[in-house]
Amino acid sequence: MAEHDVIDEHLEDDQGDAYGLDARTVRAIREAAEAGDAAALTALMEPLHPADIADVLEQMDREPRDRLIALYGHEFDGDILSELEESVREEVIATLAPDVLTDAVRELESDDVVDLIEDLDEAQRSEILDALGAADRLAVEQALSFPEYSAGRLMQREVVTAPAHWTVGDAIDFMRAKEDLPDQFYHIVLVDPRHQPVAYVTLGKVMSSRRDIALMDLAEPSFRTIPVTQDEEDVAYAFNQYHLISAPVVDEDGRLVGVITIDDAMAVLSEENEEDLLRLAGVGDESLSDRTLQIARQRFPWLFVNLLTAILASIVIAQFEDVLAAIVALAVLMPIVASMGGNAGTQSLTVAVRSLATRDLTGANALRVIRREITAGLINGCIFAVIMGVVGVVWFGTPMLGIVLGAAMIINMVVAGLAGILVPLTLEKVGVDPALASGAFVTTVTDIVGFFAFLGLAALLLL
Amino acid sequence: MAEHDVIDEHLEDDQGDAYGLDARTVRAIREAAEAGDAAALTALMEPLHPADIADVLEQMDREPRDRLIALYGHEFDGDILSELEESVREEVIATLAPDVLTDAVRELESDDVVDLIEDLDEAQRSEILDALGAADRLAVEQALSFPEYSAGRLMQREVVTAPAHWTVGDAIDFMRAKEDLPDQFYHIVLVDPRHQPVAYVTLGKVMSSRRDIALMDLAEPSFRTIPVTQDEEDVAYAFNQYHLISAPVVDEDGRLVGVITIDDAMAVLSEENEEDLLRLAGVGDESLSDRTLQIARQRFPWLFVNLLTAILASIVIAQFEDVLAAIVALAVLMPIVASMGGNAGTQSLTVAVRSLATRDLTGANALRVIRREITAGLINGCIFAVIMGVVGVVWFGTPMLGIVLGAAMIINMVVAGLAGILVPLTLEKVGVDPALASGAFVTTVTDIVGFFAFLGLAALLLL
Repeated sequence: MAEHDVIDEHLEDDQGDAYGLDARTVRAIREAAEAGDAAALTALMEPLHPADIADVLEQMDREPRDRLIALYGHEFDGDILSELEESVREEVIATLAPDVLTDAVRELESDDVVDLIEDLDEAQRSEILDALGAADRLAVEQALSFPEYSAGRLMQREVVTAPAHWTVGDAIDFMRAKEDLPDQFYHIVLVDPRHQPVAYVTLGKVMSSRRDIALMDLAEPSFRTIPVTQDEEDVAYAFNQYHLISAPVVDEDGRLVGVITIDDAMAVLSEENEEDLLRLAGVGDESLSDRTLQIARQRFPWLFVNLLTAILASIVIAQFEDVLAAIVALAVLMPIVASMGGNAGTQSLTVAVRSLATRDLTGANALRVIRREITAGLINGCIFAVIMGVVGVVWFGTPMLGIVLGAAMIINMVVAGLAGILVPLTLEKVGVDPALASGAFVTTVTDIVGFFAFLGLAALLLL
Repeated sequence: MAEHDVIDEHLEDDQGDAYGLDARTVRAIREAAEAGDAAALTALMEPLHPADIADVLEQMDREPRDRLIALYGHEFDGDILSELEESVREEVIATLAPDVLTDAVRELESDDVVDLIEDLDEAQRSEILDALGAADRLAVEQALSFPEYSAGRLMQREVVTAPAHWTVGDAIDFMRAKEDLPDQFYHIVLVDPRHQPVAYVTLGKVMSSRRDIALMDLAEPSFRTIPVTQDEEDVAYAFNQYHLISAPVVDEDGRLVGVITIDDAMAVLSEENEEDLLRLAGVGDESLSDRTLQIARQRFPWLFVNLLTAILASIVIAQFEDVLAAIVALAVLMPIVASMGGNAGTQSLTVAVRSLATRDLTGANALRVIRREITAGLINGCIFAVIMGVVGVVWFGTPMLGIVLGAAMIINMVVAGLAGILVPLTLEKVGVDPALASGAFVTTVTDIVGFFAFLGLAALLLL
């Protein structure tokens, strides 16, 4: 029985990494592709989930990948395309024989086609639209009329609805008579005569209730509607915050136009988290399958910004050339102050950026958080001031150098805490993604303050 | 009608941030709590989702929060406890009157109780266990016998099952007769006589099929089982990778013991992403509602590690005191080399850590990614070498200084790319979370290499 195979295979895998591909399968697939053995290749790939096949393709260089795709040919499934990440997807679409592409795309639901083509260039986009039937093409084009990253792009249009006055029996008879129910649905949306959703019921409740019960009596308290133009990030937040499984999408008149299910919201949540993580590190929307030149280009802007801020810091240092020429120990120790400030600032700003994303940091508690950051910076600053003061004295034998080092440390760590929270808050307020730009601002502040405090105090107290 | 209120309220909110709390409500709640106005407080809080109430509590200081809880009293819902984050939850449980706590806990499903008490200390834990009925207590204690962060802790034990030979009609009759179906379920799990799951069917398919159809004929291809001891991170990966909505959990004999649904997997995914983000920044499992001293203590270890690596870098600089004393320009420019290397290294390591978490980086493509990182580092290194060479010459008028600066830049950026990928790969291999420790190692490498290359080349070529 097919189902038993799945379990056995699964338990066998259980030792190591229970999911994903094992390295042996990947190697065998590559070898089959290299040897031009289409039969072996198909036998190896056939049992894999499209998401896993997509992973295999993403991990290959372009030439062997093209060879694999040519061999795999008509087995190529539309779902594999959906699972591929953008940069690889474009290359794969360019590689696929036109009839294979047409077949692959026709299998997909309209929301998957939308997801597929929204990142493609005009030529590839119309190639795919032409492959669709008239009804599907219309659905896709309508979805594309909604703003990018909006609920309208994310939703599926197929919704199972029932008039709000129906009973359980009405709903069951209706569903049994209906030919083309969506593949996956979890709720029946109850609508009023203007087609505005007023409640929903779970299929579980419908199935376990008597036929004469009114659907409205089974309505779930979790019911929420989503405006069609809402940003998908807000949609993902709502699903996670309110434990939604599906939610009806409404147009500006409150009329039902589609439904979003939690699996789509989960994918958005995962992408948004990835975006924040990469942006905080100064990496754009990079993926592991991007080519070297793309990578270098994507990383350049952040490095360039960092260069400018580093030069700014150097200009600060240059103001103290006399002091540095007189006391070389300052040049030895000054990176410590800047580095500690930079790290403390990064800690604060990361917590702030994450808290803004999860909406735990709001106007209501911002003052409290600012106070806390300053105090935490002061506490750790004092501890490190003592440690560094001792290091300075022991290493260079000048007590005053230890005092200068300690004082600069306290100043820079308090400033780091303050900048780490104020910079993201300000960026959020002016509508710039704090994940994108906070790092550059905060480390500029801590570098400049660190060098200035340390060298400035040294000029005052040591010369 | 209650449902209409929800829509209206929702559309009204639509202008700004469609979800979460608006600042006005939060302010009104605080004022009501301060004024001791229990009626106003209850009226304001009653319409809120427990997740939003939890957010309000998290954003308050302890004293006003305790006052609010005392006023809200018996309205306090068990779900609010579930939604609170750990540190606040402990304080709230300590504050709640014993009978309020008992009532609150009794409302919860057993998996929510497990989630609630696993982080509590022994005294609070037994207080809550004592509040439960015997059956619930047994269920919770059994769940706690599974390892922390395992599927066994995450699953709910209530599963709707049917013998694999049943028809649609059998299933519907069974469900209608059954008294206590779970609140939320999406699949019926088909089991063999040994209670091993062999397939599942969606409720939608059951409802839309004729009574004489065999359930096995409706089996979903997405069927996968989850071992009860599997790490919850792997569970979340599987749900996201394979678009699962629910999955049966099996013990070591393959017998059904529970079910995990996508909403729980989504919560885990979100937590894991947050953990990676914070760990990369050297922040432990910090939350915004932690107290100042906790914050300072949690951030201290990473700052201390950073101090040690900064001192290491200073020791490298100290080897070149003669060169620095002779040419002060070196002290001015040397932070630029280290800073650029540090940033390039952070870019590489963040992409690597994320790719390891999403399993896009594997043994199969590691070599390719390493080659790519080195090449990207070389390309950007060369560009910045030219820029910095020019800056060095223009600023200090010494062509050789420009050459030294440029050469050090190329060396450090190539090393940054290499360290940024090798360090996380190595940590993953030896079983250390790469998100936790990569940053310290990589910046140590880039600091030391940066200072050594710049000052060493200067000693060779400029003295």
